[in-house]
Amino acid sequence: MNTKTLLLVVPVSWAGLWTGPLAEIALELNVRVHGRDEFAPEDVDYVLTLRPPAGFLKTLPNLKAVFSLGAGVDGVLADPEYPKQVPLVRFVDRTLSSELAQYCVLHVLMHHRQQRFFDRAQAERKWRQALPMRRTEDTLIGILGFGKIGALTAERLRDLDFQVAGWSRTRKRVTGVESFAGESELPAFLARSDFLICLLPLTNDTRGILNAEVFRQLPEGAYVINVARGGHLVEDDLIAALDSGHLSGATLDVFATEPLPETSPLWTHPKITVTPHIAAISAPRVAAQYVVDGIARFERGERLQNIVDLTRGY
Amino acid sequence: MNTKTLLLVVPVSWAGLWTGPLAEIALELNVRVHGRDEFAPEDVDYVLTLRPPAGFLKTLPNLKAVFSLGAGVDGVLADPEYPKQVPLVRFVDRTLSSELAQYCVLHVLMHHRQQRFFDRAQAERKWRQALPMRRTEDTLIGILGFGKIGALTAERLRDLDFQVAGWSRTRKRVTGVESFAGESELPAFLARSDFLICLLPLTNDTRGILNAEVFRQLPEGAYVINVARGGHLVEDDLIAALDSGHLSGATLDVFATEPLPETSPLWTHPKITVTPHIAAISAPRVAAQYVVDGIARFERGERLQNIVDLTRGY
Repeated sequence: MNTKTLLLVVPVSWAGLWTGPLAEIALELNVRVHGRDEFAPEDVDYVLTLRPPAGFLKTLPNLKAVFSLGAGVDGVLADPEYPKQVPLVRFVDRTLSSELAQYCVLHVLMHHRQQRFFDRAQAERKWRQALPMRRTEDTLIGILGFGKIGALTAERLRDLDFQVAGWSRTRKRVTGVESFAGESELPAFLARSDFLICLLPLTNDTRGILNAEVFRQLPEGAYVINVARGGHLVEDDLIAALDSGHLSGATLDVFATEPLPETSPLWTHPKITVTPHIAAISAPRVAAQYVVDGIARFERGERLQNIVDLTRGY
Repeated sequence: MNTKTLLLVVPVSWAGLWTGPLAEIALELNVRVHGRDEFAPEDVDYVLTLRPPAGFLKTLPNLKAVFSLGAGVDGVLADPEYPKQVPLVRFVDRTLSSELAQYCVLHVLMHHRQQRFFDRAQAERKWRQALPMRRTEDTLIGILGFGKIGALTAERLRDLDFQVAGWSRTRKRVTGVESFAGESELPAFLARSDFLICLLPLTNDTRGILNAEVFRQLPEGAYVINVARGGHLVEDDLIAALDSGHLSGATLDVFATEPLPETSPLWTHPKITVTPHIAAISAPRVAAQYVVDGIARFERGERLQNIVDLTRGY
């Protein structure tokens, strides 16, 4: 069989994360690293990347498919010259989805169970039991973006007896979870959501969706969790909604600029929890397996799974 | 029908929590509060309590049943003169169980996902992504006490892809959760448990079970969560196991003395999270319904549910 060439288009200092596992599980694959190894553009069959340099992919005349290293492909599609005839594959992995769901469960429970309050009480060595708590059964969670990851997150929160709803472009069916669909149902969805979790893909339609207008429609005291992309959030609108007291807090894992600059007011806002884009880390071993499986599938002439609809952008 | 008398044996300042809901849902019940209202001992049909004064219950000649306000009945059975012919009912409630499960999920995830590390990084405005994380699939959780609450907790953690096992006196069957039974299987159970969650009833057999000998058998870096009773834990042994580095941390919701004295070293230990016995708060409305339902059942001549086996102590 003809040896196929996979080109990694990632920061060179990170490449070792994937070249190691790839070498272990795919002996027959010729793995090259962009910016480190020599390669002839016409030899490149496949690319694994998160954010390729604009205009680069179109220079590979025999490119058969592009594999994204993340569930979100906005980094790849940021290239205005993306070669539209080449299928782009999203990394949809049970582990990645499960980690995102865990992250959401953790941050919902931290706020719901007032763990920050108890942390402060501990720091003061004070036994402060007296805070009333809302029951999970009376707490409504809204998940913006109700695909596979949203559905898994919804199920885990539903199992903890929260009342969960999802919002997406088209209606979905998840047992025990309400489904809202389309622009017209967004206001009703927001009006009921004590927690708003953003798991949307970043597209022209969703950029800046977490804004003052949306926050205003949430109930008093709502909590916002953004685990999708920094581009979804209008940071100043969030800070204003927190400072006015309308929102009770927020957890942010993603930011317009990453790493988040030391000067950002998000770091020090008393109602914001910042984590450094760690909600889901694609294990390199799992990612390597996904690209190897995808290549094998393509070479056998089978249809690739999780191909991105380039007009939708996800 | 003869009006029945229910006596609340709780601190007088708390009694209003239950007398309100009881008055709403049980108009025909004569509710009296010990230490506040007059009552004739021979008129008392039922008692609702958590920790009655020793020797008090035996002074009620016509007592038909005692309802515990908590899932644990060690406070009632601390009375050496408990009238053994009177059935004692545990408060086993889906909400209470669910809240305990939520608490365990929260504290497992906080440690598993290193939220304290990220909190410190945020306080320093540092983007610190670089910490490796164990996968949930590779993380083993052991639940000491595998009754209804233990099973629910196990299921919720199992659904987050942790590997969960339970340990109890007799073998149990919960899908996808390993069951260890009896003294002879305790070492194997401990040796596999990266997290040890104590949900045991407090009896003569389980008092002080969280001790140096048990901690020694846990894997290096294990984390301990005690959400049962302070009497299960030998505090000095925990501190020694944390200080030696063998255990990585602990979350404690219950203490030998409550409120936890301001001088306790547990408050300030850097590896210990202290919460003030809030893992599960029996909602007074739910507790009132449980005792009203139990009385109705007894008066209809039906068998009470969740009667404590006085020789086992739970």
